[in-house]
Amino acid sequence: MTLKRYERYADEIGELIRTQALRPGDRLPSVRQACASRRISPSTVFEAYYLLEGRGLVHARPRSGYYVNALRLPAQAEPGIAIPVPQTTRVEISELVFDVLGSTRQLDVAPLGSAFPGAALFPLDRLARSLTPAMRRLDARRMVQDLTLGDEQLRRQIGLRYGVEGTGVELAEIVITNGAMEALNLCLQAVTQPGDVVAVESPTFYAALQALERLNLRAVEVATHPRSGVDLASLAEVLQRHPVKACWFMPNFQNPLGSLMPDSSKQAMVELLARHEVPLIEDDVYGEMYFGLRRPPPAKAYDRKGLVMHCSSFSKCLAPGYRVGWTAAGRFASDIQRLKLMSTLSTAIPSQMALSDYLERGSYERHLRQLRQALAGQQALALRLIARHFPDGTRVTRPEGGYFLWLELPPQVDALQLHRMALSQRISIAPGHLFSADRRFAHCLRLNYGHPGDARFEAALKTLGELASLLCKEAAHAQASA
Amino acid sequence: MTLKRYERYADEIGELIRTQALRPGDRLPSVRQACASRRISPSTVFEAYYLLEGRGLVHARPRSGYYVNALRLPAQAEPGIAIPVPQTTRVEISELVFDVLGSTRQLDVAPLGSAFPGAALFPLDRLARSLTPAMRRLDARRMVQDLTLGDEQLRRQIGLRYGVEGTGVELAEIVITNGAMEALNLCLQAVTQPGDVVAVESPTFYAALQALERLNLRAVEVATHPRSGVDLASLAEVLQRHPVKACWFMPNFQNPLGSLMPDSSKQAMVELLARHEVPLIEDDVYGEMYFGLRRPPPAKAYDRKGLVMHCSSFSKCLAPGYRVGWTAAGRFASDIQRLKLMSTLSTAIPSQMALSDYLERGSYERHLRQLRQALAGQQALALRLIARHFPDGTRVTRPEGGYFLWLELPPQVDALQLHRMALSQRISIAPGHLFSADRRFAHCLRLNYGHPGDARFEAALKTLGELASLLCKEAAHAQASA
Repeated sequence: MTLKRYERYADEIGELIRTQALRPGDRLPSVRQACASRRISPSTVFEAYYLLEGRGLVHARPRSGYYVNALRLPAQAEPGIAIPVPQTTRVEISELVFDVLGSTRQLDVAPLGSAFPGAALFPLDRLARSLTPAMRRLDARRMVQDLTLGDEQLRRQIGLRYGVEGTGVELAEIVITNGAMEALNLCLQAVTQPGDVVAVESPTFYAALQALERLNLRAVEVATHPRSGVDLASLAEVLQRHPVKACWFMPNFQNPLGSLMPDSSKQAMVELLARHEVPLIEDDVYGEMYFGLRRPPPAKAYDRKGLVMHCSSFSKCLAPGYRVGWTAAGRFASDIQRLKLMSTLSTAIPSQMALSDYLERGSYERHLRQLRQALAGQQALALRLIARHFPDGTRVTRPEGGYFLWLELPPQVDALQLHRMALSQRISIAPGHLFSADRRFAHCLRLNYGHPGDARFEAALKTLGELASLLCKEAAHAQASA
Repeated sequence: MTLKRYERYADEIGELIRTQALRPGDRLPSVRQACASRRISPSTVFEAYYLLEGRGLVHARPRSGYYVNALRLPAQAEPGIAIPVPQTTRVEISELVFDVLGSTRQLDVAPLGSAFPGAALFPLDRLARSLTPAMRRLDARRMVQDLTLGDEQLRRQIGLRYGVEGTGVELAEIVITNGAMEALNLCLQAVTQPGDVVAVESPTFYAALQALERLNLRAVEVATHPRSGVDLASLAEVLQRHPVKACWFMPNFQNPLGSLMPDSSKQAMVELLARHEVPLIEDDVYGEMYFGLRRPPPAKAYDRKGLVMHCSSFSKCLAPGYRVGWTAAGRFASDIQRLKLMSTLSTAIPSQMALSDYLERGSYERHLRQLRQALAGQQALALRLIARHFPDGTRVTRPEGGYFLWLELPPQVDALQLHRMALSQRISIAPGHLFSADRRFAHCLRLNYGHPGDARFEAALKTLGELASLLCKEAAHAQASA
């Protein structure tokens, strides 16, 4: 898990760019300067600069050196915070979600509406090679034992990662699940009864809304800033006004906004919820996909009362299709274990064994670094294309991790109409309608940039921008002739 | 999937024994007779007789020939039908189930209370060898597609088996799930709302009761005969008296009774339910483990209105721990698919691919035959031991498939007390308390005989019988001195 020297140096430069100590157009230190000041070899410097180039942060000018990219300039405006209605809402979104997602499932569609990154990003072949030997090492008797908690070795590996990150989690808290989706659902069931009120972000991940709908729960939306996540004042107000039984939040790289709550906000949020004795269901499936220097801690890191149920999985960052997730569920762990026993019994053992084997061999960190790098570079490309092709007035987020952009189009554009037009061009998007119980984000959309190497990507973004411009013009025309 | 000649001959003799055309103590045809009358070779006859000996049906007497075993004689009485209370009940059984099952999980306990057969019965190594190559053949892009319905190849294989058995099922009806447990739960969710009434057998599988409890449903029990299953008169009465929203039944080798509904009863039941427009959730996880000549058809075979949701899995008969089940859900298939998308998204792909590969290679039938044979022989052994060691007045079922026996002990024996005493001797049992919402089977227990080759089995049954006898004597003594 230790970084190579060139990686460390590249990370430092990357951080200087991120914090704007080095600005677009600035020249990086020359190889000679870098060698002298850092006592590293020329090849180390070159490798670092190649890496930064791969990440889309710098570019070389022949016989001149490396310069910080102007990629994100002309900087487009970021979307502002949207203030949700203060009432609780009965959730009825599933039909729309199924309609939209169902239409975007074909392999010949550019997957900008997908919820998953591209398959080429994952060591699928390496994982497959772990399957047979890992299963043959397994004591056969364990196959018919009750494995509800999950494979102990895998739970230890997961516990170890919490430890390294500095988040205090007991082994007994960790329950392996069928992906994060099951973990989140079980957590929700563990702390609610039909009719209860659950606080969610605004906009929020449609699966959270679907889970609420399925369990006959009511949603109350909390204002969520596209950059800094859950607004604490809004949350405090919601907690006072409504009998909130649980919060379902995503502090790290929220879906769809990509927002990242500052550490201090996470801590304040956990303390606020603790004062109200309200459990937090923390969806942290994107936490490992950060572009900064270190993994942002989960809210769970600040949990003192066992009220935070931290949920994550390997599905987005290592092994899609293996369906292995988990929750570190604090005081609710044994309830969740029982709910799991009653609903799916246990999680597939081959998947658990392969992941346990893979993690033990220690190549996960290296894979994650490559993944982050690929995604960061791809985000830069996406932002550049959006700046070039989308209509004036388009606002776009600049997440510091994950693989989603959230676009706010001029208000006259209907994202559902855009979705239908795009689909006829074999392009999928996720219209804003999917991300709120009251469909307030009708002119917004979520774009997945997590398919590097997909040749259709650039063309798809260009087409999408043109379609959005067309819709703007039509709306203007209609207004003029009205 | 074709039988060898000696297997066919053994099956025929086995059927003569089962139907009592050949009775205990009868001599089998001599090798010479058999060769002449059947036009088969002596080695075929010998192989057939060895097979029957392995199944516990016959024994050799030196220099005399093969004789039908007197195993089941002195025949113990079978339990009679228990008449349930006519009211619906709020289900509150989970705590007890968790207590009992939780205490029986250790590897050093003789697993007579287990819900699973022994690991040695399964081709686990063969399945493991399918994992890596099957996954490497997979188009990586399918890993991140929505695979909610399940792998198409696997669904085709499952559909093919329905076809061969003569049960009409459309491919589009089949949804792959995380074991039968998830299938059953999703079916229940698809057709009920909290507070609804669901009809179950009496006694019934505790997981059904737990599912009802979790979903806040009310149970009404239908009288169920230990040999022939659901009593149709009782069912008709229940349907008239209560607003039943669904039935959860196990027509083939019911857990815990082992009862098998005759084909004509299944048909009559499906027609009765169709007249009331009541969906049937059919749990058929033991259907492949028959000891007769052919697989008993599921109730689904008689479904004309798409009201039967047939649920099964590979967990009990091929691949425990792989967590692959399915439902053929008739008119409810797309609702179930959506519920699945919202709760666990999809089923682990490595497990699905390995099973698909295994089924395609055509060795499943051979495995099943060996499994059935091992279980039939083991049942004979168990019945013999129970006859020898259990107190007078013990009644026991003689199921024609599966791996459970249901014992009715003299009424003064408390099975929960027996469970605690047995556990102190490292023996687990499943006390009757687990199998009814109103705990009416307090002197009954379910015994798992599905661990052939477990050296502890004989000693455990002997100890258990002695403990039961002890409880009988204590009760008699207490009565006498009272």
